[in-house]
Amino acid sequence: MAERARIARFFAPLTATEPGSFQLMDDAARLSPPPGSALVITTDSVIQGIHVLADATPTQYAQKLVRRNLSDIAAMGAAPWRYTLNLHTPAGLGDDWFADFAATLDAEQRVFGMVLIGGDSTAGGDVVHTTMTCFGLTDGEVLRRAGAQVGDDIYVSGAIGGAIGCNYYSICCLLARSEALIARYHMPQPRIALGQALRGIAHACIDISDGLLADVAQLCAASGVGVQIRQMAIPLSIGVQQLLRQKPALWDTILHGGDDYELCFTASSAMRAQLAALAEELGVALTRIGTVTQAPGLVVLDAHGVAMPISSRGWEYA
Amino acid sequence: MAERARIARFFAPLTATEPGSFQLMDDAARLSPPPGSALVITTDSVIQGIHVLADATPTQYAQKLVRRNLSDIAAMGAAPWRYTLNLHTPAGLGDDWFADFAATLDAEQRVFGMVLIGGDSTAGGDVVHTTMTCFGLTDGEVLRRAGAQVGDDIYVSGAIGGAIGCNYYSICCLLARSEALIARYHMPQPRIALGQALRGIAHACIDISDGLLADVAQLCAASGVGVQIRQMAIPLSIGVQQLLRQKPALWDTILHGGDDYELCFTASSAMRAQLAALAEELGVALTRIGTVTQAPGLVVLDAHGVAMPISSRGWEYA
Repeated sequence: MAERARIARFFAPLTATEPGSFQLMDDAARLSPPPGSALVITTDSVIQGIHVLADATPTQYAQKLVRRNLSDIAAMGAAPWRYTLNLHTPAGLGDDWFADFAATLDAEQRVFGMVLIGGDSTAGGDVVHTTMTCFGLTDGEVLRRAGAQVGDDIYVSGAIGGAIGCNYYSICCLLARSEALIARYHMPQPRIALGQALRGIAHACIDISDGLLADVAQLCAASGVGVQIRQMAIPLSIGVQQLLRQKPALWDTILHGGDDYELCFTASSAMRAQLAALAEELGVALTRIGTVTQAPGLVVLDAHGVAMPISSRGWEYA
Repeated sequence: MAERARIARFFAPLTATEPGSFQLMDDAARLSPPPGSALVITTDSVIQGIHVLADATPTQYAQKLVRRNLSDIAAMGAAPWRYTLNLHTPAGLGDDWFADFAATLDAEQRVFGMVLIGGDSTAGGDVVHTTMTCFGLTDGEVLRRAGAQVGDDIYVSGAIGGAIGCNYYSICCLLARSEALIARYHMPQPRIALGQALRGIAHACIDISDGLLADVAQLCAASGVGVQIRQMAIPLSIGVQQLLRQKPALWDTILHGGDDYELCFTASSAMRAQLAALAEELGVALTRIGTVTQAPGLVVLDAHGVAMPISSRGWEYA
């Protein structure tokens, strides 16, 4: 199917509820945020073999693309609203791929309340290369990385390391690949409701996309503080707990791996009861993993209260 | 230089005048269009070897990226305002490349009144692959492809075929490459002021990015009309006029080639004097190349008034 026919058939229907998309028929879209709102804008690329496995299905691909972007919207405490899409696909990719990809976007739009408003497409290259730019809405207030205060508790949502297990499997090929970890890798759960609820509670927030320590380091750098994390408090997914029993050396990978898309945030200890109630209400684990310190730097204490040696692989702490 | 250091050094300074960029330090940007304005949003990728020559300099690369996007903003009659940037670059690309690329973006920001607000970057692949998403401003009114009326004059701005010459040279290698045509290819002139001035004058407008006939076909399809174009009225760049004297068969390439980024628009014949004055005022040639017809389809009349055979290479007329 030719490019324009493909756009008309698979992608134009995704614009139906936003008149300003002009059904992808014009040179650009027109967007008017509702009165009293500001836009929260993020953009992330997803490249086959880098951000999704080389053999990812179109459904896995679309889910990862949407959720990787929405995790940033969540971390700012905003609500998903609109998005644009850039598609660069190998010339031989069949209509079936586009049909599945677009059907998944359609399903994701319904889950998250988003609508496609524009994009472009090019044929070429050996791998699928996509970019999504997401527009969230806020009443003006957003969560920031800056703002963590000395003495704050540090929390993470959900469990850490599920996606790392997949990376680890796929890169190292040491163990059989686990379908559950692959699913977790391709379909993270952006913490949209949590992010919005944390406004007014959290002092600082970031999503974990580059690895727990790398992202905590970013939050600290933006806030001008340090942290002390208790290794044993870090909530791990069941798959990762199993892996660790076989390979305790994986701890380093778990601390440094990325792709979890959980939220990491700090809040005053006066908020503990409120956060426990919020966790209950949203059905999301919120685990206190450490404390914000005046001394700069990241310290991870092991089960014996001894600081673990930490490599700075994959990130820099400035 | 590591990724974060590179962002801080070369790209964060480009955000200085927009506080909502958070200096690229947060998960997303916050953007509030001025009261009374709507956003006009377009996004285009530029891939080394596809949209720029394989040996394009970082300056040529950045100019093409900015201008390819701004041509869409111009075609909607909007004013450039903000943008995001996705960079996927081969792992070995040096800091010099990024320094030149960012310096050119800085210069382009000053020319067009834009500010960087966010983006992402990934290392990998064999070629530079970028995406820009541009946010223009309008008071609400935009130019559309739909709206051309039977009897309207059809105009193009500037001259056609300059960039095609470069494509033709680079692809066919029949003749020595011309520096002037390469420059035109990499640095199109988005018709920003013209687009804004055409609001209230033009009935329909499109930018010529896929080739004159392909884009006229899009305008016709959106408007439900046909067109008759006079071949001899099409304004050609001097380089292309020279080429045509050597190779008259190039006419087909000129009609179908893309990348000119001129505006093609229709207006009532009552507007001729006003458009002549506008051309004078803006210093941009506005050439009447034909007429909108009730009968669907594209007809190009040659010097003898005979319809030329037209292939539909590179586009479809639905």
